[in-house]
Order: sequence, then C-alpha cells, then structure tokens
Amino acid sequence: MIISMRPHATREEIDRVCERIREFGYKVHSIEGEERVVIGAVGMGDVTACLESLEATPGVETAMRISAPYKFVSKEFKKERTRIRVNGAEIGGDEFVVMAGPCSVENEKQILDTAEGVAAAGAKVLRGGAFKPRTSPYDFQGLALEGLKLLAKARQATGLAIVTEIMSEGDVDTVAEYADIMQVGARNMQNFALLKALGKCRRPILLKRGMSSTIKELLMSAEYITAHGNPNIMLCERGIRTFETATRNTCDITAVAVLNELTHLPVILDPSHATGKQSLVPALARAAVAIGADGLIVEVHPCPEKAMSDGAQSLRLERFHSMMQELEPYIKLWKESRLTAAAATA
Amino acid sequence: MIISMRPHATREEIDRVCERIREFGYKVHSIEGEERVVIGAVGMGDVTACLESLEATPGVETAMRISAPYKFVSKEFKKERTRIRVNGAEIGGDEFVVMAGPCSVENEKQILDTAEGVAAAGAKVLRGGAFKPRTSPYDFQGLALEGLKLLAKARQATGLAIVTEIMSEGDVDTVAEYADIMQVGARNMQNFALLKALGKCRRPILLKRGMSSTIKELLMSAEYITAHGNPNIMLCERGIRTFETATRNTCDITAVAVLNELTHLPVILDPSHATGKQSLVPALARAAVAIGADGLIVEVHPCPEKAMSDGAQSLRLERFHSMMQELEPYIKLWKESRLTAAAATA
Amino acid sequence: MIISMRPHATREEIDRVCERIREFGYKVHSIEGEERVVIGAVGMGDVTACLESLEATPGVETAMRISAPYKFVSKEFKKERTRIRVNGAEIGGDEFVVMAGPCSVENEKQILDTAEGVAAAGAKVLRGGAFKPRTSPYDFQGLALEGLKLLAKARQATGLAIVTEIMSEGDVDTVAEYADIMQVGARNMQNFALLKALGKCRRPILLKRGMSSTIKELLMSAEYITAHGNPNIMLCERGIRTFETATRNTCDITAVAVLNELTHLPVILDPSHATGKQSLVPALARAAVAIGADGLIVEVHPCPEKAMSDGAQSLRLERFHSMMQELEPYIKLWKESRLTAAAATA
Amino acid sequence: MIISMRPHATREEIDRVCERIREFGYKVHSIEGEERVVIGAVGMGDVTACLESLEATPGVETAMRISAPYKFVSKEFKKERTRIRVNGAEIGGDEFVVMAGPCSVENEKQILDTAEGVAAAGAKVLRGGAFKPRTSPYDFQGLALEGLKLLAKARQATGLAIVTEIMSEGDVDTVAEYADIMQVGARNMQNFALLKALGKCRRPILLKRGMSSTIKELLMSAEYITAHGNPNIMLCERGIRTFETATRNTCDITAVAVLNELTHLPVILDPSHATGKQSLVPALARAAVAIGADGLIVEVHPCPEKAMSDGAQSLRLERFHSMMQELEPYIKLWKESRLTAAAATA
Repeated sequence: MIISMRPHATREEIDRVCERIREFGYKVHSIEGEERVVIGAVGMGDVTACLESLEATPGVETAMRISAPYKFVSKEFKKERTRIRVNGAEIGGDEFVVMAGPCSVENEKQILDTAEGVAAAGAKVLRGGAFKPRTSPYDFQGLALEGLKLLAKARQATGLAIVTEIMSEGDVDTVAEYADIMQVGARNMQNFALLKALGKCRRPILLKRGMSSTIKELLMSAEYITAHGNPNIMLCERGIRTFETATRNTCDITAVAVLNELTHLPVILDPSHATGKQSLVPALARAAVAIGADGLIVEVHPCPEKAMSDGAQSLRLERFHSMMQELEPYIKLWKESRLTAAAATA
Repeated sequence: MIISMRPHATREEIDRVCERIREFGYKVHSIEGEERVVIGAVGMGDVTACLESLEATPGVETAMRISAPYKFVSKEFKKERTRIRVNGAEIGGDEFVVMAGPCSVENEKQILDTAEGVAAAGAKVLRGGAFKPRTSPYDFQGLALEGLKLLAKARQATGLAIVTEIMSEGDVDTVAEYADIMQVGARNMQNFALLKALGKCRRPILLKRGMSSTIKELLMSAEYITAHGNPNIMLCERGIRTFETATRNTCDITAVAVLNELTHLPVILDPSHATGKQSLVPALARAAVAIGADGLIVEVHPCPEKAMSDGAQSLRLERFHSMMQELEPYIKLWKESRLTAAAATA
Repeated sequence: MIISMRPHATREEIDRVCERIREFGYKVHSIEGEERVVIGAVGMGDVTACLESLEATPGVETAMRISAPYKFVSKEFKKERTRIRVNGAEIGGDEFVVMAGPCSVENEKQILDTAEGVAAAGAKVLRGGAFKPRTSPYDFQGLALEGLKLLAKARQATGLAIVTEIMSEGDVDTVAEYADIMQVGARNMQNFALLKALGKCRRPILLKRGMSSTIKELLMSAEYITAHGNPNIMLCERGIRTFETATRNTCDITAVAVLNELTHLPVILDPSHATGKQSLVPALARAAVAIGADGLIVEVHPCPEKAMSDGAQSLRLERFHSMMQELEPYIKLWKESRLTAAAATA
Repeated sequence: MIISMRPHATREEIDRVCERIREFGYKVHSIEGEERVVIGAVGMGDVTACLESLEATPGVETAMRISAPYKFVSKEFKKERTRIRVNGAEIGGDEFVVMAGPCSVENEKQILDTAEGVAAAGAKVLRGGAFKPRTSPYDFQGLALEGLKLLAKARQATGLAIVTEIMSEGDVDTVAEYADIMQVGARNMQNFALLKALGKCRRPILLKRGMSSTIKELLMSAEYITAHGNPNIMLCERGIRTFETATRNTCDITAVAVLNELTHLPVILDPSHATGKQSLVPALARAAVAIGADGLIVEVHPCPEKAMSDGAQSLRLERFHSMMQELEPYIKLWKESRLTAAAATA
C-alpha cells in the first residue's frame, strides 16, 4: 500500500497513520517529499480493511493498494492457460470454439433446427435461454424447465454441448442437471449470492462482464467463483455501456488482449450483444479471432423476425454459415499463433 | 410504435412490415416521406414482441415504442404520491425522512451507539448492513443473521425503523422478519429473481439505482416488484458510474427531479455512495433537500477509521449532528413547497 | 512520484529505473515489498517528462504523480476566493450572481426584451450567443459582429454586464471589445490555442467544463489561461456526457463541492444545458444554490417556441421571474453560510 | 420528423403544433393512438429549426428527425469509396496504409531515424507532432515550425508522406505548406472555427473522433469540412472515454464497421491512443485489419523511454517491424475481401 498524506498534514496525523499501519501488521516506509509525506506499507495482512481504515484517518489524502486484489485467476498464480472440456469441445486450448443458437428456446422445432444448422456450420456449443432476464415484467420470461429439456434433446440430437443462463441460486441444481456450461449474465456479474452458489458447483461457468464493470471487477467476480471451489471459468466480453447509441453496447475488444495479459482463463467474445445489429456481427467476429479471443458466442435464429427476443441481432442460419466460412482463414492464423506462442513458452 | 423504413426499402418490404404489424393486432398508418416511409402502429398488443420482430424484418431501419414501458409506477396510473409508513415514520409524505447508520453492523456497542446518536440528531430510520456485497471474496461479508438481530435490538432501544440490504431470494423471509425496509443494492437492481421474490413480500422496498442503469430501467425494476404484488417502493439515487474519478460515483441529482415528473414513488438520495468522501456529504445533502428528494440515506459511524467498510465516506456522529442542524432551514423550505404543491393540486 | 515495478522485475531493471529518476534530478527511495519493489521519487523537476519516460522503461508497471498538476488555480497557492468584478456585479464574493438570456442573439427586439425582463427579475449579467457552435454546418451559426453590437446595446439599455461565447483565437479582440465576460464553450475547453490567446487578454473568462472532461482537466485548462497571464476565471459545470438519455447531459453537481475544496476560483452552474428541459431547470437551480455555487447561467427567451436554438431548455420570462422568487430564501441561506465561512477563516 | 404529443395534450395544443409544422413548410400526418397523438411531418425544410421550435411548444413530449443530418459524407450521396492520394500512397483504395512515427518531433536524428525505420518496415506515411495539445501548460508544447521543417526533411529522405496535427486556424497555411495530411486531434473535433478553415484548404484531413463524440457527431464534423469545400477526409477511431481505466481509452472498434455502412470516407484506427500501452498495440492492430479499417496510425519511437511524450504507448522500431510482419497475412485477407466486395458491386 502507498499512503499519500495531505500537503499540510501534521506530525501527529502522520504518526497516527504509521501506527495504524503497524497495527494491521505492516512495516512502515516513510518518504518525506517537498510537498507532502508518502508512506509505503509492506507485508502481508488484510489489505482492504487497512486501506479503508486509512482512508478514513485524518490527514490522509489517498491510500491505494499496489498488489492485484485477485490471486487464483492471475497469471502469476498459474502460468498455463486453463482448458475447459465440455462434451467433446475444449475451450482455452488449441481450438477456436464457436457457441451459437437463439436468444431464447421457443419450441422444439426452433431449437432442433437451429442446433442442426449451427452444428453443420461448425459450432461446438449450442446456446439458448430457458430463464430470460428481461427488463420488463411483461415480456416473455423463457420456458424455464421445459426449455432446459428441449436443450438436452438438442444436445442428444446433435452432440453439441449446451450453454444456458442461470439467474437464481435456487436454480443451480436444476440448470446444472441439463447444461454443460452455466452462463452468468451481465446483470448478475456482481450477484455475489449466485457466484458463491456456482463456486460450489462442478459445471464450467461462462461469466459475462457487467455492462458497467471494469476488467478488474470481472476478474474479482471470477475470483469469487474460484475461491468458493470452482476454477472452470470462461470470461466473456459482451460490450459495455457508454454514451454511444449507434450500437446496443460498445465492444471493449481490447479487454480481450488485457485479459490475455492478466489471467489464464479463456476469453469469449459475444458480437451479438456487443453490437445489437446482425449486420455488424461478422465483422466484429473476425476482429475477435484476430485479437486472440478463445471463442465466440453468437445469436442465431432460423427466422429472426419471428424470434421472441433479440431478433435484430440474430443471424439467419445461412448468414451464420457463410460467416463461419469467412472466419476460416482467420482461425487458421489464430491456430498458428497459438502454436508459436506455445512453442515459445515451452 | 413508429417504424422507420430504410431510404431504399422496396414496396414488398414495406408491405411485409405492414402485414407483420397487423398480425400483432395493430392498425397501420403509413406516411410517405421524401426520403423514406414511416409507419405508425396504433392499438393495444404485445409491444415488445412486435418491436423485436420488426427490428429483425428486412427493410426496417428503426422501430421504437412511443408509450412508456411501465404502468403501475407512472403518474398517469396514480396521481397521488405514494406514502410509506414504517414504524412511525412516513416516507413520501409531508416529512423529510433521514436514514442513517453504519455501512456494516459490526458489533452490539457500535450499532447501539450509532442508533442512539442518529436518533438524537433527528434520523427516523437506522441503516446497517448484515449481508454485504463486497467486490472481493476475501473482504468482510457481514454478520448475517447476527447482524439482523443486533439491528432489531437497536430498533427496540431507540424506536428507529430498520433498513438493511437483502442480497438473495433465499433470505427474503429471514430479512423480512427483522427489517422494516428491505434494500436492493445497486448491483442487484436487475436481479430479476430477487425482484420477483420481493414482489411477493409485504415489506417496503428501497430500490437503489444500478450504477449504469438508466432512469427508465430503474422504473422498470420498480414495475417488476409492483407487478408481482408489492407497491411499497422507494427509489434511491446513489450515483452512477462515469469517467470522473474525483468522486466514487457521479451523483445524477437531476434524476430526482425527473422521477418526480414521472412517478408517484418517493425518491431517496444517498450522498455517501454518490460522493465516496465524507467531506462532500453535507453539501450534497443540502442540494438533495433543495431539489425535492423525499429523504436521505447517510453513512454514519462512531469511529470511521475503525469501520470495517466504507470508512472514508462515513460521517462521525458529531458531524452528522451538525449536518442535521444545517439542513433544518432547507427542510423548512422543503415542507413549505410540499404544502404549496399539495394545495395547488387540491 | 511513485513508481511501482512489475512483480518479477529484475535487479537490472530496477537499477535502470533508479538511474533514470536521478537523471531527472530526483532522489530515490526504494521500498522492497513482498511481491514487488515500489520506488518513491522526491524533489523538484519536470514531473511529466520523468513520468512518461518511466512508463516506457522496461520493468515498470505504473508510474504516477502524487502532487497536483496545477498550481496557480489551487487553494494551496491562494487561500482567498477570487472575486471578479464586471460592470457592477461581483462574482465569487458575497452575492449570488445570476446570468440569464437567450441561447442566440436573434434580433434587436428579442435581446432587448429579454435583457429588460431578466434585469427586472434580478439577473446581473446578460448571456447571449453571437458566435454559435452548432453540430451541423447547416444550422443557424449566429449573427456574429451584429450580435455583439446588439448585446452592447442591451447593456447600455439595462446596465447588465454581458457574457458571450468566443470560438476562435481570431475573434479575441473583437469579442473583448463588446463583452464583459468571454465564455469558452464545452467543446473548446481543450482548444489550447484559444486558451493561450485568452490568457493574454484582460477580460474575465467563463470556462465551461468539456462534456467528457474530468474536474482535474477543467482545472488544468484554467491553469493554461492563468499561466498565460489572465487569472480572472470562472469555472462552469454544465453537465457531462453519460449513458443516461432522460436529460441532455448529466449534471455533476458534486463537482461544485469538489471545486470548492480544490480551487479559489468561482463556480457557476448551468442548469439549462445540464438538463436540456426547461421544466427541470428551477429544481436544479435550487440545488445549485444549496450546494454552494457562486452563480447560475440560465437560458431565457421571450418565446421559446420561436427561438432559433435551444428552445426546449429555455425558460419563458415569466417562469424565470417566478424561479428567481423561489430562489430567494435559498439565496438568503447561501449568504448566511458565506458570512459564517468568512468569519470562520477570519 | 415525428412529433409525439404528451398523453393528455389538448386539442388546442395539437392544433398549434400542426400549425407550426405547416409554417415551416411541411405537410402534417396525424396518427391518433390509444394514449396519445403522434404527428408525422413530411417535406423539405429547415429540420433543425423546426425541431427546436416544436420541442419548446406546449404539449409536445418529443420531436425527432428521421433523416440523417449529414448529406455529402453519406453513402446515399456517393456510393463509391473516397480514395485519397498522398505522395504515392492511396488511402481508401486497394492498399491497407500504415502511418507511423513518434508522438512529437524532437530533433533531426530522432525523426530521420524513425522515418527510415518505419519506411523500411512498410509504412507509407510518417506521423509526427510539431504542435502538441498538452493537458498541462508546463509540458513540452512541440517544436512548431522547426518541427514541420524536420518532417519535410524526413519526407525528402524517405519518400514517405507526412501527417501532422493542426491546432489553430491561424496555422492552416503554414502547416499546409509542409504536411501532406493535416490531422485534427480528438480535442478539436468540434472546434468549428478550425473545421471551417480546413474546409477552405486543399490538403487531405485526418479527422480524429472526439473522446466523447458519437459516430454521428464525427460524421457531422466531416460534413462541416466538406460543406466548406474540402471532401478529402479520413476518419479516425482512437478510443473513447469510458469508466474503464485498464486502458487509456476504450477502442470502439465496431465504429469502423458502422462507419463502413454509413459513409464512403476511409476509416483509420489508432491503436496507440486507443490502448495507451505498447504491449496491447499489435493485437489491436490485427483486429483493425480484420474488421476492415483502411489503415492504421501508430506511435513508434527509436527509444520510447527517452520520448518527450507518449513513451508508454510507443513501439520500438524493432517491435513495429515485427508487428508489420505479423500483420502481413491479415492484410492479404483484407485485400482479398476488398476485391470480392469490389467485384460484387461492379
């Protein structure tokens, strides 16, 4: 920790701060500047508690931690990338994995048609919502258990793994029974009760970044799940909220590169929510491969204008198919660079 | 709904859009502009579903709703302000209500001392967290049930009503047993599972605005709770997340005035989270009274530098006391303007 | 400066960093933490250059300055509030000053009627744009020189001081000839060529905060003007750009309180641009008085629906008049607290 | 235009609105909804003036334009992509153009070494600042005219074209004498006096997006330059300001795809300012090629730790060289897709 005192802090204030630091078990290193005193605190202790105490102590201007607040999810803790196997696919390894499917599971025909279509185009995971987080209480809220069963049917028919959203701690067991990957939506990224419940569960988690969450907060939410027992986490950039209204969200694509520097967890990009417009999805998908994401999660629907949600950002099956073909040479380059990187660290 | 077609939409595309609109039960009014066709849809139907369908229909540029997406919380639905009675205090009525107390309940002495101090200064409601939403899994998570019991003890000792945060649907019954007002924190504003559970509960709700939620989304979350059965809701502005880092959040104080135009629900302002710095709290509190909020929720601690959380933004008891005195003439003006407004509508 | 090294920085990297720091004339204080080395640099030198150099030096994770980057505008430099006299009014002193008038000067009758109206209601300064920054090249761009002359006529008729926007260094002499206060618009807050030109000028400056500028950047822009010779600056909060669309901008009202802690310069609030809706202006104006701003700048028009710009946020003369009456008791409290504060520091 | 009346607007208010619309030369189409009246205005007239008038007219809730506010820069106005030739390079055509060089021109050796280095690596344009927009008046402000002369020397030595920033209308002639492309920095994107001056000039313009400017506002600023006579404009995405602090700015990479749908102007991406960290630049550069930008502008310095500005985000020459090699296969794919697109429209 570095504590910066106010320019005119008194000797008593400075002494009291040093005392507080020592009470928390840290050693004190004081630097007398021209304008003010800056104090370094070195050691191992309850950083947050110490910081909060110091910030409330008279004479202190700012108190900040230097070390990262997360541990298990950091590259310092574990150098090799985390690889997550689900039903034949491996995320975080040598394959670029595409997850695709409708926003909501609507009926058997819709989900089976989509599953077959996306599998034929090369997707390895089927997405589809059974529990839907809708801004309005009057909108379609999903088929719930029936939706989960239809997803399981689609898995049986196609061999695809299933990713679906979980919105409530009360549903963990039920969803875990049907899903291969449990998705935490952007609105629940800091639903700590849910994160704790998922930490106790075995299933891999797809953790979406909250729409106003920093990269550090995303990692802290992953740390929650890991600290409670479940290290199988994929992070997902799906756009953040800014002043720009030309797109539904603003895709912070650089977050992929930042995360690749900070963590060993795989990173998935969601070009559908990031843009909100299907015409923009293929271009952003190319960029996601190029920047080094581990995979994509894409909304696809057999007939977007009849979709019960998110039609505007859903690709038709044919467009998804042609997009997958366009991505092929980029994925080839992606694989080469993964192999080069692996060889370099070996 | 107003549907704006692309400049070069074909006749077939336009016809197909009109047909879709009629399928949803609306009447079509088509306007042929110089550059493009704009279509109005009039009637009663499933607006969201229709909009989403149209946005995915070829030839459509934008489709937007004109009517507000909320109903029960709007002033159109109910003209008189909602008044909420808790343990002697009334929020939304003729009294400006101050809620105050520590971020976390830490121990019996701390909460009792604070409760007595804030009651003596004029607060009517005691705040205190038993379940704490902490960004890090390694930080103090609150005393849970023990904390609730201490709050109940403080209520008995002082006559103050109790407001405390609820983080999980699983805790609704427990928290409702001890609290007079159940607070939904900013991070859970769109935790729809929790909102639904609170809708089925009797206790008044203090619903905090999410840090990147629009005013409309805040109203939609209140609509969720109302639509599920509980109309006793206070809204709370506590600062939104922006690029500015001089304060912890950016207080959108105008939201109070906007909400007073749109809804009959009371609006509370939280100057502690909005600023993150205790020295700024009294000035913002004055502004909140002046702009017409129904009350404040303020963090107060007997010894902020020993607080287990949020020390930097907590007022000492003495400062809270002097702030309450400074607020007095502003609250007097507030009451006069409430009476004038009431007389005007009578 | 505090330089935080990467966790695994080598001894050579650390030594090289220390050497660089000494080259810039600073003394080095090194702190060996558990995880990493942190280095304090003490002394007087070219901070920015040194920081930028260090940030690019291998092994460095972050390098940050501790001291404020501004000098002349800080309270440390000058304790007494800056008072600015213009044509009878004094801003920053014991009077709460209201500036009012139309967005654009449109014709003689419009500006004279408005000037008389706002003077009668208690305004001391007339606002009115002769050079208009318009997002579109096809919109009304202002009457230019003719507008300035009409403003001068209105001053003569009413005794009001004049504030008007300057958009180009080329216009400094012309505008200075007619205006009492020269306004730098939000879009030009970091037009450094203009700031330098205004530094060489005698006229007081009203410097508006850029719509995505931090409080620190606002102070740096004021520092530019002061450093080039002109210390007569008023700062103006006029709302920042966020994700919220219910209002034209989001008023960062707390910025007023933050600025009152950091600088001796007066702070004006613009409730018209901050909200974009005339119905919200009076409530926000009350809050501005309560939080301790030095004045307001408000858009007023004799007939908003015939205004050539900003009609939606302009008050009618009658509404401005009644707002001024509503503000009266708040301004009375404002004066009392100014006198109390003055007595306390005396 | 679509005008949406308040739910309880009176017949008189509605009639008055219709009358106003007709006064501006539009035809009125009125739609009576269940809740409110919506009015369409069709025709050609002064849209902005009419909108502003209506927004200030009693009974009106919102008034919005349907047509785009820009004309010359839109794809509707001109289908073929704008190609800009500078000193051998062509931007917007069949070549992906890389511009590279130091933040500031510092001395002859530095700029010549960099110019030779980036030319050898495949850059076609040399960037380098002679006039520097610095947040602090105390920081290095650039070499001004001397810097321009050094850039000209570097052009002569290497055959590279020159891009450099212009900060003041007063410098247009001088900068135009030396530069091949004149850059408008993010802070000046809405410096309308400068935009007008550049409209009267012959040189191509690189227009950077303001850090809180929408895509529409960027296009409007380009429209300003075009409307005043200069159609040779490249747009530049360089990151926008958001709450995220892990990177200097947040790169809105999707803006490239959005602009490719809306305008015929070339789009350049600046991965250096977008990230602020040199280690992230190559990954983002790959993504920029993949999403379909027309080129890059990258900061490169022979010795970043001795750079007078922006060292942290500057690539060493060797890293720039290797990045260019990594980009090669992506640029090859880029060319193929350009040729496919050209063939498709032919």
